[in-house]
Amino acid sequence: MSNPLKLSVPQDAPFIDFEREFDFPVEAVFEAHRDPEAIAQWLGPRGMTATVDHYDFRTGGSYRYIHTGPDGISYGFSGVFHTVRENDFAIQTFEFDGYPDVVSLEFLQFEDLGDGRCKLVGHAVYPTQEARDGMAQSGMEGGLTESYERLEELLGSHR
Amino acid sequence: MSNPLKLSVPQDAPFIDFEREFDFPVEAVFEAHRDPEAIAQWLGPRGMTATVDHYDFRTGGSYRYIHTGPDGISYGFSGVFHTVRENDFAIQTFEFDGYPDVVSLEFLQFEDLGDGRCKLVGHAVYPTQEARDGMAQSGMEGGLTESYERLEELLGSHR
Repeated sequence: MSNPLKLSVPQDAPFIDFEREFDFPVEAVFEAHRDPEAIAQWLGPRGMTATVDHYDFRTGGSYRYIHTGPDGISYGFSGVFHTVRENDFAIQTFEFDGYPDVVSLEFLQFEDLGDGRCKLVGHAVYPTQEARDGMAQSGMEGGLTESYERLEELLGSHR
Repeated sequence: MSNPLKLSVPQDAPFIDFEREFDFPVEAVFEAHRDPEAIAQWLGPRGMTATVDHYDFRTGGSYRYIHTGPDGISYGFSGVFHTVRENDFAIQTFEFDGYPDVVSLEFLQFEDLGDGRCKLVGHAVYPTQEARDGMAQSGMEGGLTESYERLEELLGSHR
């Protein structure tokens, strides 16, 4: 688990960017983004129970999932997939029920690094600078760090 | 045709904002955004022939339309609808075939002004400042101005 999340939050633009390498083939990492059962096992911070209402990871598809914490409080997330290209690229919208209509757009590139390794490159765009700041301060970095650690653990358990 | 388009292109953020009033009820302007046959008659600059491949203006729906100029050159546009609330609000993605994967996110509010009038308030968000600049310089203002004039003409012809 030695691959760090590199997150960047530019001061003068409503973006969040990240990079994260994986010691797994691009096909395996892509499949874990496509399979709703896998999504329920890794997407979100540790300690949350995930329920996937639907997760249709294809161009024109949509998704909705709910995270429930140990305190029983639930957090719903939903969006649509503008583009999904196998083992290559996805563009999707993202909305948290707690901030209705504050929708962001996420670009996710799946890069094959060879030798059974790959890299995710993410770029998220927010409708206002304030929405971006709120997202950056919401614990997103920790949540993403834990999500990708859980993804590695899930893929490792299949080996 | 005395309702001007007010377009604003902020210098320091990858956004384009606009407002446009209409001397027609919000229900009529919304319906012209929903009906694919109406879309083909007003969306786009004058002189273009529009072909609507599909236009499913509802939450989770998608669209694709093609504009063909007098020179026979075609321009395709497509996206997905994240949110559509009747007579109220829509959020959609937007992609021009000529710039694949350079997708923007558009927020469109339908405001009832009373007395049979309404206002559209638009906010578009681009994945880079350069993409926003390119869109602003592409003749978007003229195209939007002519689109909304055509929309008024279409609604006026139904009176």
